[in-house]
Amino acid sequence: MAETRAEVAIIMGSQSDWPTMRHAADTLEALGISHDARIISAHRTPDRLVAFAKGARAEGFKVIIAGAGGAAHLPGMAASMTPLPVFGVPVQSKALSGQDSLLSIVQMPAGIPVGTLAIGRSGAINAALLAAAVLALSDPELAKRLDAWRAEQSAKVAERPQDEA
Amino acid sequence: MAETRAEVAIIMGSQSDWPTMRHAADTLEALGISHDARIISAHRTPDRLVAFAKGARAEGFKVIIAGAGGAAHLPGMAASMTPLPVFGVPVQSKALSGQDSLLSIVQMPAGIPVGTLAIGRSGAINAALLAAAVLALSDPELAKRLDAWRAEQSAKVAERPQDEA
Amino acid sequence: MAETRAEVAIIMGSQSDWPTMRHAADTLEALGISHDARIISAHRTPDRLVAFAKGARAEGFKVIIAGAGGAAHLPGMAASMTPLPVFGVPVQSKALSGQDSLLSIVQMPAGIPVGTLAIGRSGAINAALLAAAVLALSDPELAKRLDAWRAEQSAKVAERPQDEA
Amino acid sequence: MAETRAEVAIIMGSQSDWPTMRHAADTLEALGISHDARIISAHRTPDRLVAFAKGARAEGFKVIIAGAGGAAHLPGMAASMTPLPVFGVPVQSKALSGQDSLLSIVQMPAGIPVGTLAIGRSGAINAALLAAAVLALSDPELAKRLDAWRAEQSAKVAERPQDEA
Amino acid sequence: MAETRAEVAIIMGSQSDWPTMRHAADTLEALGISHDARIISAHRTPDRLVAFAKGARAEGFKVIIAGAGGAAHLPGMAASMTPLPVFGVPVQSKALSGQDSLLSIVQMPAGIPVGTLAIGRSGAINAALLAAAVLALSDPELAKRLDAWRAEQSAKVAERPQDEA
Amino acid sequence: MAETRAEVAIIMGSQSDWPTMRHAADTLEALGISHDARIISAHRTPDRLVAFAKGARAEGFKVIIAGAGGAAHLPGMAASMTPLPVFGVPVQSKALSGQDSLLSIVQMPAGIPVGTLAIGRSGAINAALLAAAVLALSDPELAKRLDAWRAEQSAKVAERPQDEA
Amino acid sequence: MAETRAEVAIIMGSQSDWPTMRHAADTLEALGISHDARIISAHRTPDRLVAFAKGARAEGFKVIIAGAGGAAHLPGMAASMTPLPVFGVPVQSKALSGQDSLLSIVQMPAGIPVGTLAIGRSGAINAALLAAAVLALSDPELAKRLDAWRAEQSAKVAERPQDEA
Amino acid sequence: MAETRAEVAIIMGSQSDWPTMRHAADTLEALGISHDARIISAHRTPDRLVAFAKGARAEGFKVIIAGAGGAAHLPGMAASMTPLPVFGVPVQSKALSGQDSLLSIVQMPAGIPVGTLAIGRSGAINAALLAAAVLALSDPELAKRLDAWRAEQSAKVAERPQDEA
Repeated sequence: MAETRAEVAIIMGSQSDWPTMRHAADTLEALGISHDARIISAHRTPDRLVAFAKGARAEGFKVIIAGAGGAAHLPGMAASMTPLPVFGVPVQSKALSGQDSLLSIVQMPAGIPVGTLAIGRSGAINAALLAAAVLALSDPELAKRLDAWRAEQSAKVAERPQDEA
Repeated sequence: MAETRAEVAIIMGSQSDWPTMRHAADTLEALGISHDARIISAHRTPDRLVAFAKGARAEGFKVIIAGAGGAAHLPGMAASMTPLPVFGVPVQSKALSGQDSLLSIVQMPAGIPVGTLAIGRSGAINAALLAAAVLALSDPELAKRLDAWRAEQSAKVAERPQDEA
Repeated sequence: MAETRAEVAIIMGSQSDWPTMRHAADTLEALGISHDARIISAHRTPDRLVAFAKGARAEGFKVIIAGAGGAAHLPGMAASMTPLPVFGVPVQSKALSGQDSLLSIVQMPAGIPVGTLAIGRSGAINAALLAAAVLALSDPELAKRLDAWRAEQSAKVAERPQDEA
Repeated sequence: MAETRAEVAIIMGSQSDWPTMRHAADTLEALGISHDARIISAHRTPDRLVAFAKGARAEGFKVIIAGAGGAAHLPGMAASMTPLPVFGVPVQSKALSGQDSLLSIVQMPAGIPVGTLAIGRSGAINAALLAAAVLALSDPELAKRLDAWRAEQSAKVAERPQDEA
Repeated sequence: MAETRAEVAIIMGSQSDWPTMRHAADTLEALGISHDARIISAHRTPDRLVAFAKGARAEGFKVIIAGAGGAAHLPGMAASMTPLPVFGVPVQSKALSGQDSLLSIVQMPAGIPVGTLAIGRSGAINAALLAAAVLALSDPELAKRLDAWRAEQSAKVAERPQDEA
Repeated sequence: MAETRAEVAIIMGSQSDWPTMRHAADTLEALGISHDARIISAHRTPDRLVAFAKGARAEGFKVIIAGAGGAAHLPGMAASMTPLPVFGVPVQSKALSGQDSLLSIVQMPAGIPVGTLAIGRSGAINAALLAAAVLALSDPELAKRLDAWRAEQSAKVAERPQDEA
Repeated sequence: MAETRAEVAIIMGSQSDWPTMRHAADTLEALGISHDARIISAHRTPDRLVAFAKGARAEGFKVIIAGAGGAAHLPGMAASMTPLPVFGVPVQSKALSGQDSLLSIVQMPAGIPVGTLAIGRSGAINAALLAAAVLALSDPELAKRLDAWRAEQSAKVAERPQDEA
Repeated sequence: MAETRAEVAIIMGSQSDWPTMRHAADTLEALGISHDARIISAHRTPDRLVAFAKGARAEGFKVIIAGAGGAAHLPGMAASMTPLPVFGVPVQSKALSGQDSLLSIVQMPAGIPVGTLAIGRSGAINAALLAAAVLALSDPELAKRLDAWRAEQSAKVAERPQDEA
């Protein structure tokens, strides 16, 4: 397991989740938040999951972003083994378009929370923004950057729709 | 962890799953199959889950029946850590009536199978019957008892519906 | 608007959400986290919503827990007007059992995150636990209390299911 | 905010909704009804939403057509801040095909109505026709045009299906 | 067919819809809007439907509120035979809780609009409020009453949730 | 309205339903059953629907096959105005893939039946086969042709799957 | 197997379906159509199913009404072994309210049709009415009785809703 | 019917299921498990189904893998006529993406179990792996191969996601 000084861990069940989850990485990058992206399969590498989740706080992580699709157990199982806040991203699945991913992540029993974002790319971006909001609570510089990011986002919304050329 | 000579383990996420899962136990009982019922919460007792799943084959179990509701991770996570056949029972959940339980259990990614039964009581009974079918492959006496059970079940179907008195 | 020194705001769309959301309050109480519960209807009191959300950071809140049912706009609209982390609780609705509440809260567009918990009571409890996990990042005493709460929760899981007397 | 003498406002959450919502504009155009199309994001430009919705009646609008996708809060939030009739168009979303948009718009609580149309292009056209029906109540010339439009629509329905050449 | 001077017609498929639809009547009553409630079954009394819908404008109605459940054809069929605005209320059905009613009403093809409200009681109340908003466009006194109704509704929202005594 | 001596009427809401419904026509053709295909929009040509449905028995039709999509009212409304058996085909819709079409057709209230087939092409073929089964009850020659068709269908099922060349 | 001269067979998977399916029997009774109700479980008595379905035409049946719940295979399997028209009634299931029953019955592949009615009691009544419509094609007396039944049904629809006393 | 010495039968409803089900065959192949793939349509070749299912144990099969789509009756009907364990694979359907297939297979009534896997390719692979787990209970050599297969699968999971070149 790599030693890292990153604040946010981005974990995902397989390489096929990366086209979705890289949007979380890109957003953290844009906000100047250190992060580390890893593949950890709850089902194919359970030992790696246990080692990661139990060690995440000691490794220095503050927030975990976990993306998975189908019977998506990664976010909930990570949350069961770490006191850190875990945010889950339901990756869009082939047959059920992420409805299975969403329910598998969000419907956690009382006691082990996973803050769940939208299915797919929007959810990955928002997981990063939520991590930023959390970290900004104790990082005034980040709070300013996040405020600026939000203000810029608002400013970019055009007044009127444009027909395509 | 109790030492057991049971052939089938029945595991469930919480005491609240027992009114469903006891139907699996009762059915195994009726077929003369030894079993051991335990509460193992994937989320609240992940260490117990790891210990159980990794040790299940060595403990002498041949089949695992796992019941859980909501974001039901227990069957899939058990399957990730044991080569034994795992049969999953989606317990009916409050808000979504077990649709979440079903999708969380059945939509496993390629590589880690969970044979999933129907939501609720029927699924629990059928998990036991499927375990019996598996065990009967190498247990001719059990095969006979299962055949008899099935024949009796068929014989009990009345020819015509009856109005309630 | 009341002046408060609470760390967590619990807002909900109506009095009818309180039987669900009080579980968030009770859980925060158990963890020794100050909180303030208010009724803010996105639809019937939009001005109150704007005033609250825009002023929440200045009021001293660090985390917002928002519960709503049906076309549940409260969590997302609060998130649109505050940089604080917002956690959403889908309240179980009458006709659609909270499926509408869940989708209305979780499917936020990229840019404005809401960390969404499970439908109903479990989600309310978990929203409080997630808030605790966030606050514990910069509050070592709370971190210890949360660790203890989680350990106790795990310890309370019985080994075997019990038939009702 | 532009001053306008248009009778119908068409608002939408983002430029990406325009390929759907332009069908509303085109239909109003065909019926000779003045309209003004604007991008107003409930989430990214909440101030713009508040200003628009609170000022819509004074600006001279009589009907508001609001289109949005996913966790679609725009129609309901507009309706919370204006006494004008608001008609909502669920824009087809990527993962859930507009089921989330539909439920987020139609399942409004008692007190704040949004008259919701079908998902996508048909809904956008019908929102315009419904606005026309409303305006025609006090505009006999428009009533005639709408009657003619409906009669023409009926007349254009062929008697028998045609194979493609 | 009764001769009426009512502004709003409330039609429904059967007596069993009345416990839902009477909330529309009560709301119109509270706002001082004349209305007439009738049972018109699209399936069992199609002639009554044709006569009503074709004659509704001439009878003096300005808005039609139509409630139905299951394969709910009443709102759409009424809309096909009148240029008046039609607002549909999906009545909660037994097996599918109104999901069938909702889709049968809202998913109208381009050309014939039905402004659809929420499933059940909330939808019935909101259909009345939407009718009021439409009528208020040309009735300043009603507009004042509707404004007052909305203001009172907002004022009645308590600041804080109350435990039950 | 055309005079016809066809036994089966195939009606559909629009030209866009023909690529689905032509499979019904082709199947009737293959079985030597006379049929007549017409476009009848419940919403855009309600008068045509009334005239057709009320006159269908007198015109000599014995079975009606009705296909429609979205808020599919054609089958049920035809059934409300004719004593002939009506078989409904849910045409696959764009956003909801025919789930709306299916529920709008199948969930008819007690009193007016529509025998509903599968969504799309399979349903269109099966509507024709069901019409054939009905007509065969009093047409021994057709019964033989239908038996032969079914036997041939069974005979064409290969014993083993083939890889594509 | 009983020898019967009944025109309609009502078959169902178990005694528990009778409270639903007896409405089919009652409706046939009211229309003076001979019928025979039997329990035939596709799963527990497959031999009985094969014998019944293969012999149904020879036994003199003209129409088969089949009711089943959950993974409802009875209607489709009966249809696979008889050329008679088969009408399916999805019985409301416990966890999924008959959504599973409906899809299991209606989504038949091309080649083997099942005319499917609504979930539950309405569907059972309508299956009987559809059988009546089929039989009436070659039974003028029944056609008159069915016309009268339909006329009476229409006549019983009250003009206005009644408050409960 | 072919005589075979294969341990696993792979049956499917039609040639169109083979692109899915061949993944089951390929996986069994990789594990060195003998198998025989056949097309058996529950609906178009019910006699073939009866002959196969009743004779499967005598033919020497130990496990049956059954794939089907839509109103998928093959797995359940096979299970009704054999005491062997049956594993069902829901094939992705066109309109409903396999939701119909899944419910038709998994929601079996108490008494006749089908162990159901995920929709589509993943389910086919996992059906083979579950069959392997069952067979490995009495085949130590296969148990070793399955352990090796699982270990290799785990080893192939990369540590970090890779951008596409």
